[in-house]
Amino acid sequence: MATVFEMIINGDIPSTKLYEDELCLVILDINPINYGHALVISKKVYPTFTDCPAETLSHMMEIAKKVDRKQRQALGAEGTNIIINNSPASGQEVPHLHIHVIPRFNGDGKTAAIEKGKYDADALSAMGAKLCL
Amino acid sequence: MATVFEMIINGDIPSTKLYEDELCLVILDINPINYGHALVISKKVYPTFTDCPAETLSHMMEIAKKVDRKQRQALGAEGTNIIINNSPASGQEVPHLHIHVIPRFNGDGKTAAIEKGKYDADALSAMGAKLCL
Repeated sequence: MATVFEMIINGDIPSTKLYEDELCLVILDINPINYGHALVISKKVYPTFTDCPAETLSHMMEIAKKVDRKQRQALGAEGTNIIINNSPASGQEVPHLHIHVIPRFNGDGKTAAIEKGKYDADALSAMGAKLCL
Repeated sequence: MATVFEMIINGDIPSTKLYEDELCLVILDINPINYGHALVISKKVYPTFTDCPAETLSHMMEIAKKVDRKQRQALGAEGTNIIINNSPASGQEVPHLHIHVIPRFNGDGKTAAIEKGKYDADALSAMGAKLCL
């Protein structure tokens, strides 16, 4: 079954398009973290960013840079968050690659307050050994 | 003054390195959202991702894919968040480009609970006109 992004790409449901080319489109997220929150969506279906070829992902990141600059210029954004969620465990809601570009403002209260951990020295080096590429 | 990442790159302070090449290095974040949380850091200083050349950024994203796959394979991660914070307003703590790769697990409670907005139809089209690329 087609996801909401396929339906948007196919023109079956409306969206507010900011940009479109052969590899991706950019739309407004209708439930924004801050107003102007945009999504850079691949035209082809790639479930996560690891499924997406380097050339397409690089192109999408270059478009995300343009969105960042436009949010700063047109909205006075003082920063941005670039977020790609991969798989449902991460909070990804639609299994079709999309890059969130969220405009940020000093003191907007939208930095997530998520508890962070610590390692002791042994745990740190054990984790390093596990994840060494 | 050198940032903590420059000091790490220069070997002036220790880090737990997962990978290194001529363009970037990957280390463990010592205050992880989840254990195994890694940072892909550019060797050159680029304050935000818009300052980074396409070739370097694309390379760093390809390395982030490898970190994602390794976190899934070695830790049993069921998802990942890829996050780039740009400028202090966004929560960026070190003004030197770094890509967070955060391993995620179903039900880990680490999806940010941030209130989202809505647009009425007029506000949506006005924002679309403002941000059109």
